[in-house]
Amino acid sequence: MLYQMEPIPGTDKALRKQLTAQALERLSAQQLPIRENKLPVIVLIEGWSAAGKGSLISKLIRDLDPRFYNVISFDNPTETESRRPWLWRYFTHIPEYGKLEFLDSGWVEQTMRDRVSGRLDKNQFQKRLDSIKRFERQLCDDGYLVVRFFLNISRKEQKRRINRLLDNKDTMWRVSEFDRWQNEHYKECEAVYDEILEATQSSYHPWHLIDATDTKEALPVVSHILSEAIDGAMKQKPVSGQPGGVFSLLPSPPISTVDLSPSISEDEYKTQLKACQKRLKELHNKIYRKRIPVIIAYEGWDAAGKGGNIRRIANSLDARGFEVLPIASPTPDELRHQYLWRFWNRLPKDGHVAIFDRTWYGRVMVERIEGFCTDEQWQRAYTEINEFEQELMDWGAVVVKYWIHIDSDTQLERFQNRQNTPEKRWKITDEDWRNREKWSQYEVAVNDMLQKTSTAAAPWYIIESKDKRYARIKAMKILIEAIEKALVD
Amino acid sequence: MLYQMEPIPGTDKALRKQLTAQALERLSAQQLPIRENKLPVIVLIEGWSAAGKGSLISKLIRDLDPRFYNVISFDNPTETESRRPWLWRYFTHIPEYGKLEFLDSGWVEQTMRDRVSGRLDKNQFQKRLDSIKRFERQLCDDGYLVVRFFLNISRKEQKRRINRLLDNKDTMWRVSEFDRWQNEHYKECEAVYDEILEATQSSYHPWHLIDATDTKEALPVVSHILSEAIDGAMKQKPVSGQPGGVFSLLPSPPISTVDLSPSISEDEYKTQLKACQKRLKELHNKIYRKRIPVIIAYEGWDAAGKGGNIRRIANSLDARGFEVLPIASPTPDELRHQYLWRFWNRLPKDGHVAIFDRTWYGRVMVERIEGFCTDEQWQRAYTEINEFEQELMDWGAVVVKYWIHIDSDTQLERFQNRQNTPEKRWKITDEDWRNREKWSQYEVAVNDMLQKTSTAAAPWYIIESKDKRYARIKAMKILIEAIEKALVD
Repeated sequence: MLYQMEPIPGTDKALRKQLTAQALERLSAQQLPIRENKLPVIVLIEGWSAAGKGSLISKLIRDLDPRFYNVISFDNPTETESRRPWLWRYFTHIPEYGKLEFLDSGWVEQTMRDRVSGRLDKNQFQKRLDSIKRFERQLCDDGYLVVRFFLNISRKEQKRRINRLLDNKDTMWRVSEFDRWQNEHYKECEAVYDEILEATQSSYHPWHLIDATDTKEALPVVSHILSEAIDGAMKQKPVSGQPGGVFSLLPSPPISTVDLSPSISEDEYKTQLKACQKRLKELHNKIYRKRIPVIIAYEGWDAAGKGGNIRRIANSLDARGFEVLPIASPTPDELRHQYLWRFWNRLPKDGHVAIFDRTWYGRVMVERIEGFCTDEQWQRAYTEINEFEQELMDWGAVVVKYWIHIDSDTQLERFQNRQNTPEKRWKITDEDWRNREKWSQYEVAVNDMLQKTSTAAAPWYIIESKDKRYARIKAMKILIEAIEKALVD
Repeated sequence: MLYQMEPIPGTDKALRKQLTAQALERLSAQQLPIRENKLPVIVLIEGWSAAGKGSLISKLIRDLDPRFYNVISFDNPTETESRRPWLWRYFTHIPEYGKLEFLDSGWVEQTMRDRVSGRLDKNQFQKRLDSIKRFERQLCDDGYLVVRFFLNISRKEQKRRINRLLDNKDTMWRVSEFDRWQNEHYKECEAVYDEILEATQSSYHPWHLIDATDTKEALPVVSHILSEAIDGAMKQKPVSGQPGGVFSLLPSPPISTVDLSPSISEDEYKTQLKACQKRLKELHNKIYRKRIPVIIAYEGWDAAGKGGNIRRIANSLDARGFEVLPIASPTPDELRHQYLWRFWNRLPKDGHVAIFDRTWYGRVMVERIEGFCTDEQWQRAYTEINEFEQELMDWGAVVVKYWIHIDSDTQLERFQNRQNTPEKRWKITDEDWRNREKWSQYEVAVNDMLQKTSTAAAPWYIIESKDKRYARIKAMKILIEAIEKALVD
């Protein structure tokens, strides 16, 4: 291994016992400040099979209050997990603000396995490393403290431990096929671990390589490092200082210059609608069969006709294979996590279609304008969003984003119409009128959003919706084309 | 089949079209009142493979607003689901109050499959039917409207449809092995379906058997029945009028008569603690291997020593195989579902241990006393809780329930001690003092709870905790015995 071992205290038994007690006491005393400072802490324990990851965690939590921490143990992805982006199981499991979370191995072990087994070729492995780096940086930028340990044992020591487990019928089930395989292919695994640790090394959450030959010796060391990191983060919130991914962006003219005159006749609409719906139905079968996920993002002005537009697409699809996800303001639980968490939690299975009625772009629109997040947060969000969509596309998803567009006069007309029609009145609220007053602020935000997130791979499509029928047909045609393209690739 | 077919309108095409449009319009108009009345509606569409369940649902939702409904399609249980009680996937997916949910087959199809494949023997099949009845009754009593349809087609028609799907390469994936098998064993399946439908027939949500030979004819019929049921439920909330399960109860003397003098010496405590923790560790391995789930429920007076008691058990266990679940007051999301929903959502995988720090008994304790639910609700809860625990035990779980007991004087002493010790002060809140004033009300509730839910299969264990050390050892010994018993069975 390329890394420097952490120093470990001498083997004096009494001293070690005392050091351990002190270290665990310190950790216990940090629980309350962690909660009060709303600091989320991820303790990632990676390392060799049989290195004692689980038992180390059991000892670390000995004096902790169960209300303040979680232990999550990741094994091979379940079926549910393997039908989502690889990062899904980790992102959906990040702790809430003010909680400690111990991970019994995580993205490092999985990536090592995927690489050694050949499920990732060289190129995909590089992409995976990038994905890990993005993930850890996003967590850090959101104030998450990630403390990372790698428990190291030699091949010989690993063999000894595996044999000891196999000797007892109550523990032999703990030894998996993979554990034995790993011992036989220790050198190969070591080389991949080295690559991953080197590539993901960083100043804001350094790797701590721990000699785990003697678990009792490792405990006070790990505990001490962890407590120091927590104290550090409490004094100064972690910041990665890293800029994040760079994306190739398409030019976006100001939204006010969009020509809203395109329209379509009633007859033409009926004919085209029928043809589009038939085609979408066929394509839905195909993507289901090929397990291609489709993510459709709807944003637009109030009363622009999002609902009717969504319904025309939804009506073309088999109800068993799609979901419409209306996005309201975040719940208290959602507010206690990184803001993309709630969207990760809503991702569909592969082969399924998810239609988001409003989206993760709320961060750079309503949250920006209403001051629900800081300037730093919404400014950083453009990159985070581009990275999120990148992750979806790397998974194999078709991502289509619509801005349903009308002008201010048209909105006024439709608002008044809703107000004056009894069975439509529930569709219009005081909040709609208040938002309308902020039209010009929203216009600035929309232009910024289109300019900064219209990536070459996931561009925004402006849907002119003064004529709602025209808008529906245009959206359907774009979707059809995007799916057809994915089926060919 | 034994059931009366629903009448279907004549085959006049124009008339049918008009009826369909009217029916769907009526359903659409019911969305807002459903939301306003907070009525949860489950539309269960069961029936033969290829009977058109999915396409019927697609048509029913045509004019509905996606924010008001969900479609859930159940196939074979996933790995995550198969490691939980059979009912888990259904209970965790009930809709929130004020929403419509369409199920593309559910517990009836699964039960038919399990029976025909032999996964359920005759006796287990009867238990399953009881479980379905309990589930549907609990939903009804909580105000859920469950509208149940069975789409019927003949063996010949089924064969014709399967062949048509197989003829097209884009639809052939829709035909599963099971579908073909079902067609070959139509008679056997029919007999089991008959048994299930008969056993679960009820006056408060009757089965609607629909001739699905012509889907276009079925649509207005189904839609009409559904709308009628919704209107009915809006006028008068559904009530099952059924008493629920009868349980053999153990005698429970009043809690005030418990002798709190038992204690243990420091030395004896240390010796026994070590022995118990060693034994629990061994047993944890065994249950993990045999995939036996363990559910531990902790209730007790404030400051009785629940936390320390839990920690001694938790410290004996491998961190990867247990979880401590602190139960706080329900979130807004949880309040929009039947009250047991949040506990179903927290059930562990088989082979894992879940320690609940406060439990589903909140309904008959704090919710009763603080008036957070109606008298009818908490009075009905005793039976619902017994049924819930029955479900856990039928799954194979070890269920252990502790009441951690002290007297009022001891509580006062501990409260004052917390108040006067700076590093313990955060453990005591104004609410604790307010609860203390209601000691006698709680005492009534505790006695009621012990009397009504100390079932022969899942009794309450009173843990005398004036001496906390004594309490810890007693709880551990009870747990050890319960697990040992399960391992022998």
